[in-house]
Amino acid sequence: MRTLITNIAELTTNVAVGDDPCGTMNDAAVLIEGELIAWVGTTEGAPSADEVVDAAGRAVIPGFVDSHSHLVFAGDRAAEFEARMAGQKYAAGGIRSTVAATRAATDDELRARLRGFLDEMLAQGTTTVEIKSGYGLSVADEERLLRLAAEVTPEVTFLGAHVVPAEYADRPDEYVDLVVGPMLDACVPHAKWIDVFCETGAFTVPQSRRVLEAGIARGLAPRVHASQLGPGEGVHLAVELGAASIDHGTYLTEADIDALAGSDTVLTLLPGVEFSTRQPYPDARRLLDAGVTVALACDTNPGSSFTSSMPFCIAVAVRDMGMTPAEAVWAATAGGARALRRDDVGVIAPGARADLVLLDAPTRIHLAYRPGVPLVRAVWKDGASV
Amino acid sequence: MRTLITNIAELTTNVAVGDDPCGTMNDAAVLIEGELIAWVGTTEGAPSADEVVDAAGRAVIPGFVDSHSHLVFAGDRAAEFEARMAGQKYAAGGIRSTVAATRAATDDELRARLRGFLDEMLAQGTTTVEIKSGYGLSVADEERLLRLAAEVTPEVTFLGAHVVPAEYADRPDEYVDLVVGPMLDACVPHAKWIDVFCETGAFTVPQSRRVLEAGIARGLAPRVHASQLGPGEGVHLAVELGAASIDHGTYLTEADIDALAGSDTVLTLLPGVEFSTRQPYPDARRLLDAGVTVALACDTNPGSSFTSSMPFCIAVAVRDMGMTPAEAVWAATAGGARALRRDDVGVIAPGARADLVLLDAPTRIHLAYRPGVPLVRAVWKDGASV
Repeated sequence: MRTLITNIAELTTNVAVGDDPCGTMNDAAVLIEGELIAWVGTTEGAPSADEVVDAAGRAVIPGFVDSHSHLVFAGDRAAEFEARMAGQKYAAGGIRSTVAATRAATDDELRARLRGFLDEMLAQGTTTVEIKSGYGLSVADEERLLRLAAEVTPEVTFLGAHVVPAEYADRPDEYVDLVVGPMLDACVPHAKWIDVFCETGAFTVPQSRRVLEAGIARGLAPRVHASQLGPGEGVHLAVELGAASIDHGTYLTEADIDALAGSDTVLTLLPGVEFSTRQPYPDARRLLDAGVTVALACDTNPGSSFTSSMPFCIAVAVRDMGMTPAEAVWAATAGGARALRRDDVGVIAPGARADLVLLDAPTRIHLAYRPGVPLVRAVWKDGASV
Repeated sequence: MRTLITNIAELTTNVAVGDDPCGTMNDAAVLIEGELIAWVGTTEGAPSADEVVDAAGRAVIPGFVDSHSHLVFAGDRAAEFEARMAGQKYAAGGIRSTVAATRAATDDELRARLRGFLDEMLAQGTTTVEIKSGYGLSVADEERLLRLAAEVTPEVTFLGAHVVPAEYADRPDEYVDLVVGPMLDACVPHAKWIDVFCETGAFTVPQSRRVLEAGIARGLAPRVHASQLGPGEGVHLAVELGAASIDHGTYLTEADIDALAGSDTVLTLLPGVEFSTRQPYPDARRLLDAGVTVALACDTNPGSSFTSSMPFCIAVAVRDMGMTPAEAVWAATAGGARALRRDDVGVIAPGARADLVLLDAPTRIHLAYRPGVPLVRAVWKDGASV
C-alpha cells in the first residue's frame, strides 16, 4: 500500500537544510509505503500511489515524540490542583496519594486508563510516547506498571526512585537498597531506561547516583528528573553519566547550562508543569542561544501536569519560554526523538517511520498562534491512518 | 422528543444555591424536551424519556457563551504573530491588513470561513456566540459583514469604529461622521449591539461617545472595547451609558473597578489576548473580590487572539488571573450570558435553552487541570446533539 500526501503548503521534515533545522519545504508531497516513509519531494514531481490524500494547502509535521509521561496510574488529584490554584504550594509528597490509588487498581483498570490516554494523545498528534513507572514503589507494583507500559511502547522507564513511599519515610536509604536490588531485578526485563527524581523531597545526589549506576550496570540507559523545585546537582550527575536527557530544568545555574551545552544530554522542558504548578518558566531562549539541545514533553501525570497536549506545550513554550514556533515544533518532534536517542521518529525522510500529522492550518506557527484549538486533522502512525 | 441525561457526577446549573453561584448538583440528571430543558434533578428521581444518555460519572456544564468574537474576516496574520513572539509589540494598526483581505473576499468565501469557525467552536462546547463587524470599515463592507453574521447568530455587533481605516488616517473625525451616519443606517437592520474600540491608536473618548450614543439612538445596545493597551476613560463611558459589557480591561484603575462594581456592566476578560500579545494578565481575583461581574470570552480574531477555545481561556484565567475553576466556568457560561443580557442561556434550568456540554472528565475543574486537552465529549444545542 502506497499513500501519497500532496499539496502540503508547509512540510516540516526536520532534515536540516542550511540554517533551517526544520528542513521546511513548501508545496511538498510525502509518499508512505507500508510502515515507512518512502519518498519526500515537491507535489509536481511526486510518484504515483494507491491512495492520494490532498492536504489542500495545509501543513504537515512529524508526529509528536512525547519523551516524558507517567501514564500508568489510577485516580486523579483534581482537588489538590484546585487547592494549589487557590494558593497552596506544590510538593512532591502528593505523589503518595496516587501510589495508594494505583496499588489498589487491577491490571485491567490500569490498562483501560492507559489505553484511554494513548488514544487521547494520538488524537492530538502524539505518535511516540515514553512511559515511566513510579506509582507502584513496591517490587510487585513497579514490575506490574512496567509490564503494562511495555504492552504499548518500547520506551519504558523504570522510575522506582520517584519518591520514597510512606512505608519507608524514615529510612530512605533502605528504600534505595530495595530499588537497586530486588526491584531492579524484577523490572529490568520490561525496561529500556533507568530514571530517578533527584530533588529535595525526593532523592539526594548520592542516592540518585546509586540508582542510575545500578540501572546502567544492568543495561538500562539513564535519564534524570532534576531541578524542578530548586537548583541542585542533578544536571551534573546526568551529564557525567551520559544521560540521554535531564527533564524539568526549571531552576538551572550557569554551570548547569554550560555542562549541558557541551554534552550529548538533551534538556527536556515540560511547560505543563510550570503551568499547572504556577512555577516560573525556564528561559528556553537563553538555553537555545547557549547551544543546549531542547526537547518539549507533556509529563502527563495527575499531580504536576495533567495535560496530554503537545500543541498546548508548544504554545506555552512560545509564549512563556521564548522559543520560536519553529524551535518549539522541532523540540516536540526531533527534540523528543533525541531525548530517546531515536533517529527513526521525529523526522520526515525516506526510511523513517511513517508517523505524520496533518494540521488544520497552513503553517506550524498556528500551533502557537491558535492555542487550545484542536488543529490535528489527521494522524498516520506506522503508515496507518488513525 | 425527550432526552434524559443521567448519572451526571457533577452538574453545573448556574442556578445559585446558598454560597454556590454554580448551583452544583451531584448524581444529577437533566431532561431535554424539544429545544428546551424540561427538568433537572437527581438520577434516582428522573422521569422517563424517549432516549437516555448515560453520562457514566462525567460532568455536565451549560454550553459556553462566547460573548466576544470577530469571526467574519479573511486571511490570517501568522507572520505578524511570529514576529511579535520574537519581540515586536502588538499594535492595533495591524487590523488594517485584515481589512484589506476581508474587503477582497467574496461573500461565499467569508461565509465558508465563518461556518468553519462556528463548527470548530461548537466542537469545543460553545453554543452561543456574539459576532462583531469591524474588518469592513466602509458602508458596503460593514453592512456585508453584519448581514453574514446575522445568518448565524442573533448576537450581532456593529463595530464600524474598530480602527480608523487607512483612507481616513488623517481625518478620523470624518470617519466617525461616516460611522454614525450612512454606515449606521446601513448596519442597523442587522445588528443588536453597538461597539467601539476606545483606546489610544483607535478612537478617543469623545469619538467613542459619539458612536455609542448614535447607536443607542437607533435602538442598539452598547458594549465597549477599552483599556486593552493602557488605562483610559472607556470604562467610565461604558458604565455611564449602561453598556452590557466592557471588554478587555487589561489595564484598570481603582476608580474603574469601583465604577464596575457598582454597575450592571459586566467586565469581559479575554485571556487569549494577553496570552497572544504577551501583555500582563489582569488580576481577576481582585476584580471578583471587589464585586465586579466577570465574563470570559475568546475574542477570536486573526490579530490579537486567534484561539476559539473557551476551555483554553478557562485554564489561563485560573492559572494566570487568579480565578477558581468554578468562577472561570461560571464566567464562561453565565457570565457570558450576562454580558449579552440573556437569561435563557448559560444556565441549566427548566425553560432555558437546552445547550449543554458533556465533559470527558468527572469535574469542571478538569477544564483547567487538563489544559489543552479536548475534553468536550458531547454537545447539545437547542436540544439537538451535534
